[in-house]
Amino acid sequence: MAPDRFGALWRSLEPIGRGTDGYHRFSWTYPDLACREWFAEEAADRGMSVETDGNGNLWAWLGDPALGDAVVTGSHFDSVPGGGGYDGALGIVSAFLALDVLADHGARPRRPIGVVAFAEEEGARFGVACLGSRLLTGALDPVRAAALTDRDGVNLPEAMKSGGVEPSLLGPDPQRLHRIGTFVELHIEQGRALSVPVGVASAIWPHGRWRLDLTGTGNHAGTTGMAHRHDPMLTFAYAVLAANKEARLHDALATIGRVSVEPGATNVIPSSVTAWLDARAPEQSTVDGLVTAITNRVTERAQRDGTTASVTPESVSPVTEFDTALRDRISGLLGGAPVLATGAGHDAGVLAAHVPTAMLFVRNPTGVSHAPDEYATDTDCAAGVDALAAVLEELACR
Amino acid sequence: MAPDRFGALWRSLEPIGRGTDGYHRFSWTYPDLACREWFAEEAADRGMSVETDGNGNLWAWLGDPALGDAVVTGSHFDSVPGGGGYDGALGIVSAFLALDVLADHGARPRRPIGVVAFAEEEGARFGVACLGSRLLTGALDPVRAAALTDRDGVNLPEAMKSGGVEPSLLGPDPQRLHRIGTFVELHIEQGRALSVPVGVASAIWPHGRWRLDLTGTGNHAGTTGMAHRHDPMLTFAYAVLAANKEARLHDALATIGRVSVEPGATNVIPSSVTAWLDARAPEQSTVDGLVTAITNRVTERAQRDGTTASVTPESVSPVTEFDTALRDRISGLLGGAPVLATGAGHDAGVLAAHVPTAMLFVRNPTGVSHAPDEYATDTDCAAGVDALAAVLEELACR
Repeated sequence: MAPDRFGALWRSLEPIGRGTDGYHRFSWTYPDLACREWFAEEAADRGMSVETDGNGNLWAWLGDPALGDAVVTGSHFDSVPGGGGYDGALGIVSAFLALDVLADHGARPRRPIGVVAFAEEEGARFGVACLGSRLLTGALDPVRAAALTDRDGVNLPEAMKSGGVEPSLLGPDPQRLHRIGTFVELHIEQGRALSVPVGVASAIWPHGRWRLDLTGTGNHAGTTGMAHRHDPMLTFAYAVLAANKEARLHDALATIGRVSVEPGATNVIPSSVTAWLDARAPEQSTVDGLVTAITNRVTERAQRDGTTASVTPESVSPVTEFDTALRDRISGLLGGAPVLATGAGHDAGVLAAHVPTAMLFVRNPTGVSHAPDEYATDTDCAAGVDALAAVLEELACR
Repeated sequence: MAPDRFGALWRSLEPIGRGTDGYHRFSWTYPDLACREWFAEEAADRGMSVETDGNGNLWAWLGDPALGDAVVTGSHFDSVPGGGGYDGALGIVSAFLALDVLADHGARPRRPIGVVAFAEEEGARFGVACLGSRLLTGALDPVRAAALTDRDGVNLPEAMKSGGVEPSLLGPDPQRLHRIGTFVELHIEQGRALSVPVGVASAIWPHGRWRLDLTGTGNHAGTTGMAHRHDPMLTFAYAVLAANKEARLHDALATIGRVSVEPGATNVIPSSVTAWLDARAPEQSTVDGLVTAITNRVTERAQRDGTTASVTPESVSPVTEFDTALRDRISGLLGGAPVLATGAGHDAGVLAAHVPTAMLFVRNPTGVSHAPDEYATDTDCAAGVDALAAVLEELACR
């Protein structure tokens, strides 16, 4: 595909939800709804039928999905706060363009082909990553999902309702899931691991989020002696440095990027601090060891600070090994494209437990992701479209 | 005064702005306006005239303030988030009750007596402590004040307007200031420094707020190696621990109780962290040394983290020595009440630069302040009312 043909469709989506500090496409907010409208229009232009499932995932179909054994591709629209434009959206734009390549080739699909936009992949609004795909596959209890609230206290059903989706249908959807014969997600690579335009995923590292609840005693910053304090901010600060140190020692990744302080005033010693730890490593045992080491250090420090600490897992994912036969077939089809693991979670990781699943990665020249500077060249993106088209043609048309 | 007479008036104000997690009386919000209404009613019950000045401070007058050389007492209604009920409010309730004691005595004031409620003493909404008294005395530029915004982006003039006060009159008000011959503020003591019901202030420690701006590089938490990060959360965590350590070394107080993280998502390495340092000590040189030491440590750490750090002073107050003659006269009048310094800032500290000023402290049995558990017994509060009445009688009626 010519890079400017990619660029033309890309730039029709690009402005939605973009601010001076990156993208803010949160699920069921205006930018997300605008992206969904864009999706419906692109699907209609290609003669595809569109449906939104009970979990808010958006589907476009070429052929009748009821026939089953469909080849489905796609990704997600939602972003982290201040995120990049490629994470997620590239997979959806590339899906529609890959269908255009198939049409150019006069390819005649023998299996239904679907394009999907999963809801709330980043978990930026409701705190659980891959919310839409987890609900679809039954990996997340719909009762728990219905109780999730955003930072303003709006719950998921209210948010979905505001987007025109009936929240009473939340939950596992085995019929819809079983229509999918193969799932392929194209995604921008998020480190600097690719020296060629396109690669194939081998695995997603085990990873997860743990909530740190640190409780102390609120008091006056100007009259409470240092020796008489029970300041949970100290325990938090130690947790940040301990997570960093233990990640280096374990050859793993640990990040604390979100924190909430009560009452959060300059002249008040905090009464509590809540923070979230993101931990990832190639091996499950490493993640377990890392989180245990951090928990032990924080617990010990809390005793010294006269505070209490608890560490609670939230949305923890084991390692995902993608279907080996499918991965090797795709790598071969793409002339020996490199095969690589990633530390980033994806809806493909959730689907992989149920359906033969593969991922294509498009080169990220700077390695920046989840930040405004994230980008891929039009040339590499066009190569990604061609690769995805080749995979769809191989899977659906032969 | 009988403790239950104190309790009766106290409990008419106590419920306003109280939540399950303490008080949230922010200036110009509903609870603040309800407190102001309470003030106007209490003043009217005592035959006092009421006026709101151009900076939003509320005044009630017994006698004609235009005569000058008035004796003024009072404090503030606004609270820190999740604060206690006594900080500020006790001084206003006690002021009205002290006038009742004077009336019981048949005392005939020869000087006008004023009760004042200063606006935004805590700086909890607009970030500058003692906002109303600083504006009145000219210690704060009204242009700077008019540009202050709360966390929702509402600026001070908009907030005042919503409370029915014309914001075009912001700024120094020398005529009103010069009416005051003596200012006396009664306040709950905020540590555990009093073993008797009432004490007299000697000084307010030098203190201030400094903003820490820490900037790094936002990136994906799952794909960015630990060695390739420029994570300002690490610099922040180090700042918290360094502030605590240096405060102990300097025999001073340092607190970081407020922080804001961008973008603030679990799976994103932060791009920036803004935090506020509160620092206080008995001597100015100690505060200076403390802030310099913290700044040096944070700057050094930022170099190691590959981040940038800047430390900017906001609302810094030098030491306040209260009028020595007045202080000794009051201590004598109260039978040798103990004289003590405090680390907490007060409107009295702002007034003291212009007017002979004194402070009375009421015993705090637990030392808790700026937190829901802050309290004083009705018996001690009644003793505070009697002490304030004795001071007013001495100053205004002899």
